[in-house]
Amino acid sequence: MQAISDNRAALIEKHRPVIAQAIEAVETRVSWSPYKDSPSTRIHGTEKPPAGKAAFEARLNRRFELDLPGITGWVGEETSPYNLEPLGISYPVSDPDVLVEAARAGMPEWAKANPELRIALCLEMAERLYDRNFEMAHAIMHVAGQSYTQAFSGSGPNALDRGIEALAYAAIAMRNVVPTATYHRKFAGDDVALEKFYTLVPRGVGLVICCASFPTWNAYPAMFASLSTGNPVIVKPHPIAVLPMAIVVETCRTVLSEFGFDPNLITLAVDTLAEPVAGKYVEHPAVQIIDFTGSPRYGGHLERTVTGKLLYTETAGVNSVVMESVDDLAEAARAVARATCLFSAQMCTSPQVVYVPKGGIATSGGTAGFDDVAQAIVDEIDAIAANPKMAAGIMGAIQGDVSLDVVAAASAEAEREGMTILRPSQPYEHPDFPNARTRTPLVLAATPEHVEMYAEERFGPVLFVVAAEDGDTAAAEATELARTRGTISCYLYSTDEDFVDRWVEVYAQAGANLTINLTGAMWINFAAAYSDYHVTGLNPAGNACLTDLSFVASRFRIAQRRRPIHEAA
Amino acid sequence: MQAISDNRAALIEKHRPVIAQAIEAVETRVSWSPYKDSPSTRIHGTEKPPAGKAAFEARLNRRFELDLPGITGWVGEETSPYNLEPLGISYPVSDPDVLVEAARAGMPEWAKANPELRIALCLEMAERLYDRNFEMAHAIMHVAGQSYTQAFSGSGPNALDRGIEALAYAAIAMRNVVPTATYHRKFAGDDVALEKFYTLVPRGVGLVICCASFPTWNAYPAMFASLSTGNPVIVKPHPIAVLPMAIVVETCRTVLSEFGFDPNLITLAVDTLAEPVAGKYVEHPAVQIIDFTGSPRYGGHLERTVTGKLLYTETAGVNSVVMESVDDLAEAARAVARATCLFSAQMCTSPQVVYVPKGGIATSGGTAGFDDVAQAIVDEIDAIAANPKMAAGIMGAIQGDVSLDVVAAASAEAEREGMTILRPSQPYEHPDFPNARTRTPLVLAATPEHVEMYAEERFGPVLFVVAAEDGDTAAAEATELARTRGTISCYLYSTDEDFVDRWVEVYAQAGANLTINLTGAMWINFAAAYSDYHVTGLNPAGNACLTDLSFVASRFRIAQRRRPIHEAA
Repeated sequence: MQAISDNRAALIEKHRPVIAQAIEAVETRVSWSPYKDSPSTRIHGTEKPPAGKAAFEARLNRRFELDLPGITGWVGEETSPYNLEPLGISYPVSDPDVLVEAARAGMPEWAKANPELRIALCLEMAERLYDRNFEMAHAIMHVAGQSYTQAFSGSGPNALDRGIEALAYAAIAMRNVVPTATYHRKFAGDDVALEKFYTLVPRGVGLVICCASFPTWNAYPAMFASLSTGNPVIVKPHPIAVLPMAIVVETCRTVLSEFGFDPNLITLAVDTLAEPVAGKYVEHPAVQIIDFTGSPRYGGHLERTVTGKLLYTETAGVNSVVMESVDDLAEAARAVARATCLFSAQMCTSPQVVYVPKGGIATSGGTAGFDDVAQAIVDEIDAIAANPKMAAGIMGAIQGDVSLDVVAAASAEAEREGMTILRPSQPYEHPDFPNARTRTPLVLAATPEHVEMYAEERFGPVLFVVAAEDGDTAAAEATELARTRGTISCYLYSTDEDFVDRWVEVYAQAGANLTINLTGAMWINFAAAYSDYHVTGLNPAGNACLTDLSFVASRFRIAQRRRPIHEAA
Repeated sequence: MQAISDNRAALIEKHRPVIAQAIEAVETRVSWSPYKDSPSTRIHGTEKPPAGKAAFEARLNRRFELDLPGITGWVGEETSPYNLEPLGISYPVSDPDVLVEAARAGMPEWAKANPELRIALCLEMAERLYDRNFEMAHAIMHVAGQSYTQAFSGSGPNALDRGIEALAYAAIAMRNVVPTATYHRKFAGDDVALEKFYTLVPRGVGLVICCASFPTWNAYPAMFASLSTGNPVIVKPHPIAVLPMAIVVETCRTVLSEFGFDPNLITLAVDTLAEPVAGKYVEHPAVQIIDFTGSPRYGGHLERTVTGKLLYTETAGVNSVVMESVDDLAEAARAVARATCLFSAQMCTSPQVVYVPKGGIATSGGTAGFDDVAQAIVDEIDAIAANPKMAAGIMGAIQGDVSLDVVAAASAEAEREGMTILRPSQPYEHPDFPNARTRTPLVLAATPEHVEMYAEERFGPVLFVVAAEDGDTAAAEATELARTRGTISCYLYSTDEDFVDRWVEVYAQAGANLTINLTGAMWINFAAAYSDYHVTGLNPAGNACLTDLSFVASRFRIAQRRRPIHEAA
């Protein structure tokens, strides 16, 4: 017992500087990370990359052994978007009641643990996951279809940073509650002295429902927000993207066990497409916190039906670009094209609609017509698509056949409507995986009368270039779209400061995070943990911000006791 | 405009020290208040008390002129519990759609206002209300039935303190979001420099539904939490207790107008018992925040049906006392008796059930039998009831006939069940108001088989003394009651530290705030703003804590924008 106690104390000390720096980062919103997000061997050495790949390959075609309670069977239905072959991994399926009971069983000890220890344990989990990140990169690639570099960075350190960001807010919120106080006051002439004790009480079992295309991105903040505040967590991965979350849960359980806690404080609830299990957990009375990332359909169902529990959602919206005027057309067009190509527009921040005034826009090289602007975007997409190595690094693969259907449906609809197809969607030749499911972006020219078509979320590489009446009309429609259809991220190009001033507040009130005039090497849809707030919770794209104080502050409660001071223990 | 701008700046400066001290108080949880909670003329001088009484009397038998939008009629159905005569005051009834639209109209300017200014305006409102507190005390007396001194303190400074406590948390939460940041990072070898702007965006119209017996107590924290974070507020008073909230709304509107803001940022939604209007506001899409204090029936309905909006409730529960062993029996019995008598048990913290081991309890004077303990409590109640001046100061009056029915029903039920009536409930003679609706506590002896009878909330002066098997059985049932029926405040008397240690954590996990071994001049059910957390939100007595970070942190959202730094304005 003394050894465990020493180890725990050492763990808090080990991670104390990191949580301090994370808190400073979220309060100043500067660029910071304890990790490197490049897979370069100059950083990680030459051994880790092949070892990670080998670790992934060793997972294939066998059971993923996780010592979960209540196992009733083994299932697995993952297929790699890179070779269209089943991964052949099967995962344990647990009885939901048993899994929830196991979570509850560990809760009293976890609730009693020092909050700083819970935070340190989460930071240890993050560190171990960073250490396994080459394995994770391959796992993400072969379930989600992200490119190797994006899987390494976006689903690795960038996502872990978001988890640590949630820990920073959890630390702020929990430290705000002083554990004890003394209270002195005169009542009717008598000196009263009380000692008061304030106990942080967790809410209940947390359920984290993950999406298929970017599972770790929102899972880490949700998991760490719940765990650090004393709530056990059940991770419900998407049935076609289990492996990354199985690795996460395995890693976290190891850390818990090593430090003397019940590993069932974090478990994996695997299901199948044919028999989804989320509803059973959602309805379980012991499940008190639900973090959901996924389809607007199921997310909306939860938003309309869940009462008496905490519910945090990120679903999806329609992200727009307004191009009112630009300095350099090619640079702006390249920025938009790169964002559209990144992971084949399978990201919550991918643009879907580009508004361009039909009379053209001002550029440093004179007026560019609507067709010129549309063509500039198409040219930049073509440049990426024509270079297989670049296309592979940027576009990755299409996760599921359903996204091929999305592209095909949009294309057919466009033809029916007589719209101009500015650029057809085609497979590109992946240099490493000849059978990869790939598609370059479909680009369609639209007018405002097609609004019902482009205002509907299309999860796949489909981009509409809409001929707007003028810049103000474009911004008005873009913000209305944000307000009514939801958005995670909007983009604006304008060299007219009056125009920008006129609209920034409208974007804010519509709950649209806005990136203005960004060109160059940074992806315009890159979201930096600690610095960028992700999701506003103000429009239909989600009801929460991941992460801010509000994301963590309700995950625990405060119970107090008080007694006269002269006799307190 | 310059004058208004100067006034606003001066107001922030004026209140800067108070908000700083309030923040320090909530973070250290010491005893603090900017106000005095005694009505003594030594503090307030000799002019204010009669002026306040005169101001109240001038309100009677006429319209309460409030310049609200959309007035469709005038109603009023208040009756004084002290003379059983109608107050004769009528209040404007507004069309709900018009009131909500008016609230929305003021919102953009309010959202744009400096958060520190919004906080300063709320502090100014609090100061003005403190200044009008003698008038408020009479208003509270004659709608709620509180005694003069309790109305002055509990519904005055003690309640205002809770409002300021909410402002402290609002300041902490809003200051946590830095307004701007600069971001520097290398992407693919390029130095990227971004300027970022973070805008606090309010959620929407806040609805504050007040209870009849203690209207200002939860109204202030709710109002100030919403207002300070940029949300307009509609106050929906209980139809039989409008006057205090009309005074509040009038005062707040004056402050808003004086400093150049739309007074419709706070309005009053008056209704009648026959035609309740709350539902119309609850369902209005623009209403995004609901603070409810009142019956478990309607509160439970809201908890089960409201989705997609913020909902904070305090309803009611069954507060228990466990007397396992005591140092001085008379002192402990007096503490319990005083808490039972205070405002005739019409408080959310009033005890309803006292568990006493059937074999008696240890005291410093030897073992006291169950009957001895019960009799000691009855004796202490009798001592108060027998002294009309003391009774008037402690018990006040019974707000409504419904509480007389509660007492009568409990009495009749006890007779049917063959329970011992330890003390009948009777009117006491109020020295100043001979027609006052008064009742002293009914005390019944019960056994665990009567659990369904005493575990049901009885809103009125009814106390059950339950013969428990032993101390542990008593604490087990008390905490189970807390968990399943809800509680705001529990009480425990024990000289056995092992016993206390065994149970404090169970109370905490049941969401029961616990007061241990408190005797003497302080009321055991006194809750001190800044120091005591009120309501845990962990059991059926309410879903929120008033106040903590969680109570305010979700009332605003964050929208961000970013742009390259070289070209930012």
